[in-house]
Order: sequence, then C-alpha cells, then structure tokens
Amino acid sequence: MAQDVETSQGASKAWFVGVDVGGTKTEAVLVQDGEVRASTRIATRRGVGGVVEGAAEVVRRVCGDAGIAVADLIGVGVGVPGVVDHAAGTVTRAVNLGIHDTVPLGAMLSRELRLPVAVENDLNAAAIGAAAALGRSDLAYLSIGTGVAAGLILDGRLRRGHRGAAGEVGHLPFRSQGPQCACGQRGCIEVFGSGGALDRAWPTRGGVPAPVGLFRAAAAGDPRALAVRRAFADAVAYAVRALVVTCDPEVVVLGGGVARLGVVLRDVVVEAMHRLAEGSPFLRGLRIEEGIAMTPDERVPSLGAAQVAVSRWAADAAGAREAYRDERWR
Amino acid sequence: MAQDVETSQGASKAWFVGVDVGGTKTEAVLVQDGEVRASTRIATRRGVGGVVEGAAEVVRRVCGDAGIAVADLIGVGVGVPGVVDHAAGTVTRAVNLGIHDTVPLGAMLSRELRLPVAVENDLNAAAIGAAAALGRSDLAYLSIGTGVAAGLILDGRLRRGHRGAAGEVGHLPFRSQGPQCACGQRGCIEVFGSGGALDRAWPTRGGVPAPVGLFRAAAAGDPRALAVRRAFADAVAYAVRALVVTCDPEVVVLGGGVARLGVVLRDVVVEAMHRLAEGSPFLRGLRIEEGIAMTPDERVPSLGAAQVAVSRWAADAAGAREAYRDERWR
Repeated sequence: MAQDVETSQGASKAWFVGVDVGGTKTEAVLVQDGEVRASTRIATRRGVGGVVEGAAEVVRRVCGDAGIAVADLIGVGVGVPGVVDHAAGTVTRAVNLGIHDTVPLGAMLSRELRLPVAVENDLNAAAIGAAAALGRSDLAYLSIGTGVAAGLILDGRLRRGHRGAAGEVGHLPFRSQGPQCACGQRGCIEVFGSGGALDRAWPTRGGVPAPVGLFRAAAAGDPRALAVRRAFADAVAYAVRALVVTCDPEVVVLGGGVARLGVVLRDVVVEAMHRLAEGSPFLRGLRIEEGIAMTPDERVPSLGAAQVAVSRWAADAAGAREAYRDERWR
Repeated sequence: MAQDVETSQGASKAWFVGVDVGGTKTEAVLVQDGEVRASTRIATRRGVGGVVEGAAEVVRRVCGDAGIAVADLIGVGVGVPGVVDHAAGTVTRAVNLGIHDTVPLGAMLSRELRLPVAVENDLNAAAIGAAAALGRSDLAYLSIGTGVAAGLILDGRLRRGHRGAAGEVGHLPFRSQGPQCACGQRGCIEVFGSGGALDRAWPTRGGVPAPVGLFRAAAAGDPRALAVRRAFADAVAYAVRALVVTCDPEVVVLGGGVARLGVVLRDVVVEAMHRLAEGSPFLRGLRIEEGIAMTPDERVPSLGAAQVAVSRWAADAAGAREAYRDERWR
C-alpha cells in the first residue's frame, strides 16, 4: 500500500478519516496533509452493529461531502470509549455504546469499508489530536463530558498505562461523604465535575444545554447556580491538581462536551485553582493555572483518530519496506 | 575517559559509587558490573558545605571499605531531595538539607573528588534503582518517609514532569478537614500516611522507631494504635490509588524509611485497598493490590544513584566517540 500511495497518488494526496464514536454523536473528519477538508456528525447508534454501521456511514458521508470516494482513503482511525487493544483493534466494555464484551471493531469496520482501520481509546485519540493541534508534546486532555477522564501524552508519547486506568482521574474521591458514583465509590470528582453532574443538578428546557443554562443563571447571580458551579469548578480543579502532582503534564487541556462553554470554563476552573492554592505556598509555587488551556478545536477527538490512522499507516509502510528488503536479500 | 576505561582497566573493572543524601542519613554503595561491592552510611550534615563534605566522605569511606582508591572510580551519582536540574547538576530548595537556593552540587562534589558527578532527584534515583532491582520497566517508587512522594518510571523512561511536581502525590488532600500540612493545604496524604505522621502520633522511647512501636501496639490490640495505623494505611492506599488512576504504573513499590517494617507494611496497605474498593466494582476490577510490592532492597535510592552515574558515563562516552569520529573526518 505504501507503494500505491507513493506512485499513484503522491504522498500529498493522502486522505485519512478520523472517527470519534461518542455517547451521543459520531463525528468524522477528513484530513489531508494535516488539514481538515471536511467534517460531519450523526447520532450515535448503540450496540456492536449500530456502532459499526454508524461509523461506516459517517465515513461515507464525510467523503461524499468532499467529493471523494471511500476507496480513495488510505485509512481510517476510530476513537471509541472503553478498554481498547489498539494492536488487535478490539474494544471491551464500552458501556455507553452498549458494548459489554470484547468486539473486533477494527476488523468489522475494515470489512465494511474495505480499508485499513486503526482503533484507539477515545481519550487517547483526543490527547493525540490536542497535542498535534497545539504543537505540544506533554499534556493531559481532560475530557469533561458525561464523565471525567483524561488522555495523556507524556514526553511525546501516549501513556496508556498498565491496566487501562491511566487518566481515570474522575474516580478519585473529591468529597468522601458525597453521593455515590456510578463506579461504586462515594463523592468522586465525576459526581460533581462532569457534564452529567450538571445535567442532574441543573435540568434545562427548550434544548438549552445544562452547562449553558447553569452558567447563565450563575452569571445572573442565582445563589443555587453559583453553588453548583462552584462545586463543579472545585471538582475539576481537584482533577487538574491530581494530574499535576502525579504526572505533572506541561498543559492540562479542558475538553469534552462541557468545553463548548468556551473560555468561561477555564475562568471558573482557574478561579477554583486559586481557591485551592490559597493557603499553600507549595501549590501556588506550581502555578498550575498557567498550564490550564481550553481545547483548541472541539473536534480534537476525531482529529486525533485521523492521526492514529496516519501513524498506523506509517508503521505498516515501514513494516512493508522492511519485509521487502528482507525478501530481496534472502 | 571512555578510552581509559577500555584500555587500562577493562569495562568489567568499572567502579561507580551511588550516594543517597537523605534527611538523616547519607548512604553510599560501591557498584561494579551491577553488583554491590560495599555500602556504608553516615549521618547527614546540613547546609551546602555539609552536604558536599558528607557526600565526599561517604564516597571515600565506601572506597576504603572495598580497598580501592577514589581515583579508581569512573564516576559518582548523587540522589538528593529537592528540585534537581540533572543536566546542570544543580539542586534547588532541598529544605530538609538546609539548602534553599540553587546550588551547583555536581560541580562542587566533582571538584572535591576530582571525578565526574551526576546529580538526580532522590526519588527519581530510587525509582531507577527499584526498576533495576526488580527487572521492571513500569513502576512508581512510593517513598514513605518523613514525607510521601513517588518517583516514576513509565514505559521504561524516567518521568520527571514539567514543574518537578511529578510524584508529589503526598500533597493530595486525603481528609480535606484534617490538620494543616507543611505545604499549607489541609489533610494531605502526608499528614496521615508518612513516617513523620507516625512520629507525631506515636512517640516512642529507647530508640524504637515510631512505625515499629505503633505496629507492635496495634498487633497487641491497642485501640488507639489500631486507629492510627488504619488512618496511616488508608492514606497510603489513597496515594496508591491516585497513582493508578492517573499514571497507572504496573507496580507501586513501597519504599522509604517506613518500609523497614517489612512485608507487614504491604499487608496493611493491601487491607486498606480492599476497604477502599469494597463498594466499587470499578476499583475492584483494577486489582490494584496485586501491583503493590515492597522495595526489594533498602538501598535502592543509592543503587539508583549509582545507575545514574553509569548512564551519565555511557552518555558521555557516546558523546566522546561521536566527537572523535567527527574529528577524524573533518
């Protein structure tokens, strides 16, 4: 395949699609030479068949939007929640998507599209996408969505961790006597500092997202909104601090659904960080707030998935060259 | 220097000393081909001059014990608390040692010993030593001494972090309404889960170390000792969990002064981990307790410092070869 690209298309025509399969939306970006040529989203379909069909459809749509054929793609990368074996292309326990067992998502989608498909955990993909978009090699992408968790790029490398638990910072207790978390512990960061928490604490009407409704009410001085926003911001700041005093990434990027609030999210988290550091010369000295950034692009999860496809292709091409050389000298 | 070694001594005569400058003891190990040939400890002297003199003396002593001359060493590695710039060989804010500014410790000790000296943060050195001793490439060395902090080897590489805050997990709040920590925050892990905490909670007489006295009293059923031990173990387990849900190292190695208790320390921490995970399928599923190990050798901090010296020497030798080649072809 490496040869096909080099001879028939030229490397500069190299098209890749990145897909992010989220709890509610499945998004695709078409990338060429690191530039986004098109992007689109559809509602996520649940279950193994639904996820595969939805991913295939969003790939076809984004290619259609750009006026190219799916067969013109070099490869597809898919970011998906759950425990991913990126070498095997399998995903396990993507509960949000209705996937409970281990599913060969890469092979299934590859068959459907007749293309190489690389699979990666969605937060890992997002961290890769954020690092590329920001031109950084050391960061945590803290996704504040239904849950709270991070993807880590440390010293230029994706940190997967040993148990697939790297970045699961949302399940550190924030208020040990707080309400029970879905994970079974009490008062986790996720119980206060997630989009899910805001949905529960601030039901809205007329299609206004809960974070927007809450932040509006808080800005208008509603005392209950202020209290909810404060607990939310404190919990997120707690997560940021936990990441810094363990992995110490250069930047913590605030992403996920709640990041659609824009820079006001960073503002309240920085304010909370100042509160945390108030009595602590140690914490003040770390200047954590200077390393808190908003996600540079809402689409970093799918952009990162496209990057995963590029890397997989590069590795496969290197492997093919290696095999070719071995063959010649045999 | 690389040439000297190869021609006059042969690589197998390569002697290195690793020094660990702790809050109370300064320890040296003499290492040859990865084997310990001698080790010794003296009381730590405070202040810049004291640290340099103490380190020089312990190097001389350990060489004397082994019947070799200091000049026979290829290099010395020093592990020291505080913020270390390992490239420059400087240390900043090693408050325990009475060092407040930035001190060129490497250059000073090098002048004193007339040898190359590499400097590394003591916990980083300990993590390197533990990884070598255990034959592991992914671990956190959790030092439970006066304070609580970790050194990290992730995917085979030392993780220093961006602000020098990597592994400062002792300053995560464990009981947010707890007593004030030296860092200025309230109820940090370090306030409950350190040797310093045990010293305060369980004063002993007759030279019995506080952890030993406390664990004896707890084993005898003393209810106050049981409560102190439980809070201590819970705090350490909290630190282990925080490391796992952020960096997710394969092994968390329990080290530091309190680790002299032996395997009973691991037992109480594993018990506390079971308590934490009791209501949480998520936490139980991570099986964190299976990855908790005791330090394989009390001397891993100085063993790691020796390893740092070896690595520095190898890097210098590679650089020298490079320069020699460049010279030849010029």
